[in-house]
Amino acid sequence: LLNASKNLLKLVQKLKISKFRNLEQKFIVEGDKLVLESIQNIPQEVVTVFITNTSKIPKESISQFDVYQISNEELDKISTQKNPQHSLAIVKSSFKIKKNKEQPIILICDGIQDPGNFGTIIRTADWFGIQTIIASENTVDRFNPKVIQASMGSIFRVEVSYENLQNYLKGSNRLKIATTLDGGDLFNFETNEDIALIIGNEGKGVSSDLLQIVDVKIKIPGFGAAESLNASVASGIVIAQLKKSMQNA
Amino acid sequence: LLNASKNLLKLVQKLKISKFRNLEQKFIVEGDKLVLESIQNIPQEVVTVFITNTSKIPKESISQFDVYQISNEELDKISTQKNPQHSLAIVKSSFKIKKNKEQPIILICDGIQDPGNFGTIIRTADWFGIQTIIASENTVDRFNPKVIQASMGSIFRVEVSYENLQNYLKGSNRLKIATTLDGGDLFNFETNEDIALIIGNEGKGVSSDLLQIVDVKIKIPGFGAAESLNASVASGIVIAQLKKSMQNA
Repeated sequence: LLNASKNLLKLVQKLKISKFRNLEQKFIVEGDKLVLESIQNIPQEVVTVFITNTSKIPKESISQFDVYQISNEELDKISTQKNPQHSLAIVKSSFKIKKNKEQPIILICDGIQDPGNFGTIIRTADWFGIQTIIASENTVDRFNPKVIQASMGSIFRVEVSYENLQNYLKGSNRLKIATTLDGGDLFNFETNEDIALIIGNEGKGVSSDLLQIVDVKIKIPGFGAAESLNASVASGIVIAQLKKSMQNA
Repeated sequence: LLNASKNLLKLVQKLKISKFRNLEQKFIVEGDKLVLESIQNIPQEVVTVFITNTSKIPKESISQFDVYQISNEELDKISTQKNPQHSLAIVKSSFKIKKNKEQPIILICDGIQDPGNFGTIIRTADWFGIQTIIASENTVDRFNPKVIQASMGSIFRVEVSYENLQNYLKGSNRLKIATTLDGGDLFNFETNEDIALIIGNEGKGVSSDLLQIVDVKIKIPGFGAAESLNASVASGIVIAQLKKSMQNA
């Protein structure tokens, strides 16, 4: 076990900021659960592990890394969490996801702003076996600590890349589906085609330029007075329904 | 327009804390959108409205209330939001929801801890026309500012009450459904009966004592490596599927 230098602790602080994450090509992962997930999923990218004496991470599982013992006070200082969870790791952002050949559904995220929503969407994608997310350049950074946290480790199993969505979708021969308030009833929709499911911004929905190149607009039927659903809940409902229709096909 | 006294601003501060909300039987609502929703949905319960000079709330819509003009600095101080949205109201927590006679689905929340999740579940309930949520006593307070915010106004249209769930469920003749990791496939489940859908705690799921009195256990089929879904996403997926099966019946 090594002692963490002030410079190393400062690096962690810097990695909370998107600009420095891009510059350093590294990000931080917090808590025993997520640190273990990073070690299990992308061990070759784990650079440094910090543990307090309350960490339950087995020593043998991190013996191959630079491991620093820090105090709870030091962890409190560098953590982004309200209740820091015993450990933290610095991880290289260059990792690659091993993907299945068949990708019946991919997600297109058009300007998701809330990191909790984006992390939750990544987690939902992982649950349903979706391994590809294409995000617009104005979507929140996938390495934002709140995205990582809400993804519950799914960020290590789902590939997220940032692209110009117009260009991307024009080059794709998938069935392009968007959820809109004037779409057809999701409950009546079925397809066997490969799908690109477009998820719109929390407030504005799917951009008008993308709506012009969409093949199908669908709506989750509403029965009450709420104006809309949360973006991550809406995504989950549509993905589940699409998976069900594919299972039946 | 009145000038807000220090005591009044202190009351707002206090109402951020659950204990004082119970004592005062009041809670706070923040931002033009939610303040307007409270005025439209439960006008008789709105006690006090604070607005800054950037608020877009029409003056005529609040003329019946005590309205205080405050500065942006004062709002920053009393707000629970990172980016306070121009207005804030004190509202009495004694309001009643007008409910439809038929309640094909009610939700049972068994220890939801995260206020964002609980607010999102309330919003989803509202979307699907569910007007009754019964929460265990260890579920987060429905008047927690983050619950109110995530509910996006649905808290004014969905009745949330706190009860002993064992007793409540034993006295109910609804079909009791819980989502568990060892349940039957949700995609194959259909029913015409009135339902009590039990949503478990984020980490632990549905309590073992409730699982013993459940009629049906269902599982959202997974296709990837994620251990679980977010509680509010899982609720949305199950509710949508139940609504669809009822629509087909």
